[in-house]
Amino acid sequence: MPGNEERTQRGRMADIRERGFSDRASFDKATAWVDAHGATLMAKEIDLSEATGRVLAEPVEAAWAIPPADRASSDGYAVRSDDTVGAGDYNPLVLTLCHREDALPPSAAAPIAAGESLPRGADAILPFESARASGAALEVFSAAAEGRGVEREGQQIQAGTTLLDRARTLLPQDIGLIASLGIQRVQVIRRPRVRLIVSRPKSHGELSPLGDANGPMLRALVARDGGIVEAMILGTGQRAEIAQALAAPGADMFLLAGRTGTGWDDEAPLAVAETGELAIHGIALRPGGSAGMGVVGTAPVLLLPGDPLDCFCAYELLAGRLVRRLAGRSPELPYPVREAEVGRKIVSAIGIVDLYRVCLVNGRAEAIGSAESGGLASTLRADGFVIVPAPLEGYAPGVRIPVHIYRRTNTTS
Amino acid sequence: MPGNEERTQRGRMADIRERGFSDRASFDKATAWVDAHGATLMAKEIDLSEATGRVLAEPVEAAWAIPPADRASSDGYAVRSDDTVGAGDYNPLVLTLCHREDALPPSAAAPIAAGESLPRGADAILPFESARASGAALEVFSAAAEGRGVEREGQQIQAGTTLLDRARTLLPQDIGLIASLGIQRVQVIRRPRVRLIVSRPKSHGELSPLGDANGPMLRALVARDGGIVEAMILGTGQRAEIAQALAAPGADMFLLAGRTGTGWDDEAPLAVAETGELAIHGIALRPGGSAGMGVVGTAPVLLLPGDPLDCFCAYELLAGRLVRRLAGRSPELPYPVREAEVGRKIVSAIGIVDLYRVCLVNGRAEAIGSAESGGLASTLRADGFVIVPAPLEGYAPGVRIPVHIYRRTNTTS
Repeated sequence: MPGNEERTQRGRMADIRERGFSDRASFDKATAWVDAHGATLMAKEIDLSEATGRVLAEPVEAAWAIPPADRASSDGYAVRSDDTVGAGDYNPLVLTLCHREDALPPSAAAPIAAGESLPRGADAILPFESARASGAALEVFSAAAEGRGVEREGQQIQAGTTLLDRARTLLPQDIGLIASLGIQRVQVIRRPRVRLIVSRPKSHGELSPLGDANGPMLRALVARDGGIVEAMILGTGQRAEIAQALAAPGADMFLLAGRTGTGWDDEAPLAVAETGELAIHGIALRPGGSAGMGVVGTAPVLLLPGDPLDCFCAYELLAGRLVRRLAGRSPELPYPVREAEVGRKIVSAIGIVDLYRVCLVNGRAEAIGSAESGGLASTLRADGFVIVPAPLEGYAPGVRIPVHIYRRTNTTS
Repeated sequence: MPGNEERTQRGRMADIRERGFSDRASFDKATAWVDAHGATLMAKEIDLSEATGRVLAEPVEAAWAIPPADRASSDGYAVRSDDTVGAGDYNPLVLTLCHREDALPPSAAAPIAAGESLPRGADAILPFESARASGAALEVFSAAAEGRGVEREGQQIQAGTTLLDRARTLLPQDIGLIASLGIQRVQVIRRPRVRLIVSRPKSHGELSPLGDANGPMLRALVARDGGIVEAMILGTGQRAEIAQALAAPGADMFLLAGRTGTGWDDEAPLAVAETGELAIHGIALRPGGSAGMGVVGTAPVLLLPGDPLDCFCAYELLAGRLVRRLAGRSPELPYPVREAEVGRKIVSAIGIVDLYRVCLVNGRAEAIGSAESGGLASTLRADGFVIVPAPLEGYAPGVRIPVHIYRRTNTTS
């Protein structure tokens, strides 16, 4: 049966245990794979109160104008501007003070508060500071130009126009604007349901008090990128166990952390090849070179190395991009970027993408060890990281490069 | 009774309705007030899985070393480096292939996977690519230097050292590191419980389909800054109602939005003066000049204008700072900053802080209208905002200024 043979073949191709990566996919190829498998998910209607940070699946239209009628934009007296012409400190004019009604009589003024609709006939707001009330008379000490303190109907938003476009990530002020239109529910991109399948860290016998770093870290990263952890399966990394976790329905994508390398116990790629298709294994990326990718059913699977630093970097550069794409977000790294001058030389190799953790010292980016050294602890005192693209051999001192910032350095207590 | 007289006096001082602000507090004074009333809250123990973005109240100590023993940092064969000296493509050496045990015999090699502890005697990892197994013999084609592929005990973190300092805002990678030490709960700063007391937008009679913008917007902003909305009271803005909402216990701070100006219906400052103390009302800030601050019991109260743009800006520059301070975060604005050249002139007045929404057009910051115009809708197409400090009359074209970025402009769909 050709089908069986193909499957066996595929399984065999994937088994590079104790042989090493003979060939690694370029980082560009891996990125292109992510982009090809990261179609934005469908829409879902949610309550506006939960919509901050979510991505609009449909434009929001303004059914009403903002403001819905001419209104005062400041506190003061509603007046007819013509009635105030010529008023000054040495030439106060006197208007009749009256209550605010639907219409303002000529030569009259009515107290008005910011946000209230303008009485008919009034076309300006005179500030309190420019007038003095005494009984039914209001002395006016300066002229109010037509339109002063008045916000016209539709001045902010005209009725029937698009308030917010599709694909916009909603900010707090967007939520405010949508709410002000009386809209309580919005159509947003559904959150990708991410299943984490994590292998426990390897035992050091009696010496192994260490817990799993990858599960909790990935959970936090997935949430940051707009995904939702559908399940987190912490196991021993055996092939059958991983295959079973991959086969159960309900996930939009899988993150498989650990057992992805070339050691005798690295069965994760085999589990993917058995249950689906392993497309790429081994990427010209440091740290994170044993990462890979494939598909089970229709859901993409990202293989992430078990070493926490490798796992972190492969998540950042590849898996996170997939989560963000499915969530309809910008695929770019979600870090602010600052330009800095390279301090000591940063070494790379042509064909390999290197991620260096760096400190910013007097505005210069100083690498913390080499790309692959220091473990996850190398991120502890890093201000951020730099990426050396595949075509470069590194960065010479003094070159200006973009630094992705982990944390703001102006933090005070 | 002097006490009564003082209280009446205070109440009267606060009533500036239909008179206008005779004097406004400087922005620096308002900021100093926030800082003086923003003492970091107490610690609380929480589960690590909920700790991303939270602020450590206690340092995290490493009870164990990372790694806890010498271990392989890459897949390959554990060897004694001396046994491989002189090996080359044209001069393969042969070692005895054996299973990994506690100790490695001389002239032997044992397969090892990244993360496994090193057998005694071994001091290097030979990559699979540098050797070829045939039966019990392993041909070695290159020398492995001592320490190659080996990560020493404590190389990342030594036992007994401080892993993370107090006051650190926890990043996903920090969570991973803490978890790797087997720590499941951490001491973090408690979230400030913020009570929102919001006045409904003013009626435009038949024309008023508009909903409240401020409540939903403030809810999102408070969450962003590390606070938790303890209650959200949407009312009519009457004095007794506000006073009642201020008097109930349970909040670390209050945000009072709406009815803070100088119009006839602006009773919020009076409610604060009645239930506590109104310290500042009226600030030399645009938009947001009718903001104020005071204390009820021990909890600070921020008065925010009812106009959504004014409310947003006063939150950003003052209230948000208070939330962040209580939460133990950096008080600085939580936006990335980019330097840009001023496009058209940006006008301000000495003594007043102006917040302009800007677009970045070919790298130049172009103001969207004036500081106070456009309403909340002026944020829609803004890439960010700039702040003109009190001592300046504005910014001339071509000057380089910091722009606080609302959204990344490299967003693609």
